[in-house]
Amino acid sequence: MTTAPTVTLTGVNLIGNDDVAATGTAFRATDPASGAALEPVYHQASASDIDRVTTLAWEAFATFRQTTFAQRAAFLESIADEIEALGSTLTERVHAETGIPTARILGETARTTGQLRMFADVVREGSWTHARLDAADPDRAPLPKPDLRQREVPVGPVAVFAASNFPLAFSVAGGDTAAALAAGAPVIVKAHPAHPGTSELVGRAVRNAVRTHGLPEGTFGLIHGPGHEVGSALATDPRIRAIGFTGSRQGGLALISAAAARPVPIPVYAEMSSVNPVFVLPGALAERGSELGAAYIASMNVGVGQLCTSPGLLFLVDGPGADDFVQSATDAVSATVAAPMLSPALAAAFAQGVSRVTDNTHVAVAARGTEDSRLACPAIAQLFVTTAEQFLADHLQDEIFGPASVIVRIGDAGLLTRIVEALEGQLTATVHAAPSDYEMARPLLDHLELLAGRVLFNGWPTGVEVGHAMIHGGPFPATSAPATTSVGSRAIERFLRPVAYQNVPEELLPTELRTDNPLGIPRRIDGTLRSTD
Amino acid sequence: MTTAPTVTLTGVNLIGNDDVAATGTAFRATDPASGAALEPVYHQASASDIDRVTTLAWEAFATFRQTTFAQRAAFLESIADEIEALGSTLTERVHAETGIPTARILGETARTTGQLRMFADVVREGSWTHARLDAADPDRAPLPKPDLRQREVPVGPVAVFAASNFPLAFSVAGGDTAAALAAGAPVIVKAHPAHPGTSELVGRAVRNAVRTHGLPEGTFGLIHGPGHEVGSALATDPRIRAIGFTGSRQGGLALISAAAARPVPIPVYAEMSSVNPVFVLPGALAERGSELGAAYIASMNVGVGQLCTSPGLLFLVDGPGADDFVQSATDAVSATVAAPMLSPALAAAFAQGVSRVTDNTHVAVAARGTEDSRLACPAIAQLFVTTAEQFLADHLQDEIFGPASVIVRIGDAGLLTRIVEALEGQLTATVHAAPSDYEMARPLLDHLELLAGRVLFNGWPTGVEVGHAMIHGGPFPATSAPATTSVGSRAIERFLRPVAYQNVPEELLPTELRTDNPLGIPRRIDGTLRSTD
Repeated sequence: MTTAPTVTLTGVNLIGNDDVAATGTAFRATDPASGAALEPVYHQASASDIDRVTTLAWEAFATFRQTTFAQRAAFLESIADEIEALGSTLTERVHAETGIPTARILGETARTTGQLRMFADVVREGSWTHARLDAADPDRAPLPKPDLRQREVPVGPVAVFAASNFPLAFSVAGGDTAAALAAGAPVIVKAHPAHPGTSELVGRAVRNAVRTHGLPEGTFGLIHGPGHEVGSALATDPRIRAIGFTGSRQGGLALISAAAARPVPIPVYAEMSSVNPVFVLPGALAERGSELGAAYIASMNVGVGQLCTSPGLLFLVDGPGADDFVQSATDAVSATVAAPMLSPALAAAFAQGVSRVTDNTHVAVAARGTEDSRLACPAIAQLFVTTAEQFLADHLQDEIFGPASVIVRIGDAGLLTRIVEALEGQLTATVHAAPSDYEMARPLLDHLELLAGRVLFNGWPTGVEVGHAMIHGGPFPATSAPATTSVGSRAIERFLRPVAYQNVPEELLPTELRTDNPLGIPRRIDGTLRSTD
Repeated sequence: MTTAPTVTLTGVNLIGNDDVAATGTAFRATDPASGAALEPVYHQASASDIDRVTTLAWEAFATFRQTTFAQRAAFLESIADEIEALGSTLTERVHAETGIPTARILGETARTTGQLRMFADVVREGSWTHARLDAADPDRAPLPKPDLRQREVPVGPVAVFAASNFPLAFSVAGGDTAAALAAGAPVIVKAHPAHPGTSELVGRAVRNAVRTHGLPEGTFGLIHGPGHEVGSALATDPRIRAIGFTGSRQGGLALISAAAARPVPIPVYAEMSSVNPVFVLPGALAERGSELGAAYIASMNVGVGQLCTSPGLLFLVDGPGADDFVQSATDAVSATVAAPMLSPALAAAFAQGVSRVTDNTHVAVAARGTEDSRLACPAIAQLFVTTAEQFLADHLQDEIFGPASVIVRIGDAGLLTRIVEALEGQLTATVHAAPSDYEMARPLLDHLELLAGRVLFNGWPTGVEVGHAMIHGGPFPATSAPATTSVGSRAIERFLRPVAYQNVPEELLPTELRTDNPLGIPRRIDGTLRSTD
């Protein structure tokens, strides 16, 4: 353990090498446990701040995209090192701004640095560039065949909108930033206003790495803003070429509209909302109904329910064990002690979402967690129960961001198909089944893979492994770009675009496409994939 | 050479197994050489026809997407065989409807069948499914690592809008259709109204293959319509999950808006407009100015200028050889005899586009081709000349679809950067350079790869090789989806979406993800690519 450095937060925007003390709307973070406002004061970036940060990013692009794979990989690793060096300074600030327990913060820090190092490995390995070489055939009749080679180029500067619920892993140096930098795209982060101090700490860490590697100052920028103005200015700036966003459906849709209305539209990779349906089949219920009920609520409570993959909707096929499941889930919710939500705004939205369901006379409140009057932004866990018929009639699938979930009891398993067809696009869909359920599970899985980015079996959707096979994405409204992922090594693809080179001489070709393969990367030669292992 | 079968065109929509004689607006194809209307009469599909064809496609999806790689490959090969079996029946109808010379029709037929067979090979090879397996680690602390596997699934039924200018290769069984079927997605083609008979012939060929392979009847459908109604109904049908379009910017933008306004938006892969800038540098001009001038016009005249990659804008860096280039290009245009355009509508649009430039007093008409009064829809080749300063002032880069091009003479090579920055997104960008030009070519190529999907060196953009390294795409407005291609093996990616499977038991996993790799396809195992060669 290194000694935590003393970093004085100054409340500025990080624009190139400059600390810019903006003068727009002032705001501070709130300690969600005590409700206390935290120092320092941050200010919304001005139009000229935004112009400056995007100008620098555009200027940096020409140089940064030409860095070698090795240079970019080393840069990503330095960011990870710089974040680790923040030690308890970072942990304490994250805790103060979000109320997240220290153990989870340490886990999220490791995930964030691991993600940066994974992208370093991805960049070096090189197959992300999709290098392809099709040989010329000058003698082909009736027309000679040209020499064609293909690789990926970065799209240009990327605006990343940080999420509230992962102040490290989906924030300033989170997945979107790591993927874009790996692709060779400069990044401007719009900090989340709920954790500006954490953002400044991590932003300074990234800037240190930019300096260490002698990269152009515009390779990374960090700007603040409590409302929508900064985001909207970024989204419409012609030098921004792609957007990464994790947040509400409303926020995502606003960015999508703004990006589509530009003279030159750009892609928005928005992760928005998901209720992550879970299906518990009869064999699994009969075998372990009670155990599953408790595990369900444990998953719902992870991160005080503020995870994109929280199970908000669970379908039980009635039969032996179903009552045990509901009883066990009910007991677990009743035993859940209130915990602080990430911010006052999220606590208010959670209370509203809970009221909306409570007001529905066809939905029963099965259980309610215990209160804690000392908390400024408490979330009281909630469990609701309804029937399949009611679910189909009421379309009960709006996300309630926080520790709440709805159990839908299915009396007639013949309704399963209609239920699946009524569901919106999801990040995840889960099936719990015993071997005796496989005949029912098979067509269900066939449906669910068309509905979600990740299908789980006998597990719980919370916990998103960062790896090569992960997909954190899914059909609308879960995301705006279902063909992509925001977690895992394929996230780099969102910030790339393929280019073909026809008859370009060796000395003018990008290194990865030279005939002798100087980088030693996997390439497709005349249609055949050549790995290097 | 097989004997051409007798196929009687009946003017119907092909909806599943049924020939549906629609009763909407009647229209006929026109012989663009003679102006004669051709039999039979076609009719616009009704709302209920469209409902039926999309219902069948949706029903077919469940079965078709589960076909094995081998089955889908054999199906694609049968389509190619069926098209070849049409022999001169097809060639004659294409010629009658489009005026394209027989040699080019035979070439385009070979390209179309070759494309179908390439996708058969792609499907069998299997790396398009991006199979990835990350092994579980139950002992990992603090949390066990799950088993994660990933593959691609097809998005669902695809609507393909056929292009006018490639009645085979970008039409009923063209690249979009081949790529979507390869992906496991049913296809509904909206025929181009300029070649409905060709569409019916090829549509019947595809249907024969559907029957031969016992596939669901909704795997393929073909509907007609002379206006926008059919397209708009298709684009907004909830069962259509992606759109492939090749045509005008106006048409593409209308589809993009319609698709974005759906309750669940879908991707539109629209190829719209491109002027395919060519840069001729001083060394190349000095070395072979005259030869290049003639080759430029030869490329402009391919397909009577009606190719998406036709060079509509050429930049000359003034110096020795520049006058020879212009003289040679001028002579070649003057010697160009009028040829029929594909349709009366395109001939009218071409005349309008030419007038627009002719009316610009800062642009000189350098040459005009010779007329042919016997033609109903003639295109008279046109060559214009202007200066770099005027190009920058007037933004002269609207596509004129047909045999016309603008030479921009650059007196001051220092303007090159500003010119490139003023250009819109393109399908192609070309540089002609001698070794003495490489220092100038290098930064130019760096710019151009950010502007275009394909960069050519010492060649001409017409002629799009169908292969593994081709990209036929590019930044907006060339296309609406710059990260994809509509030609070449990567076109399959547009109709796929990745899904991750977490802890799914072997017997419930998709075949391509089973541990023993029964299909023998390339896969990424714990991050390392394993090819099978």
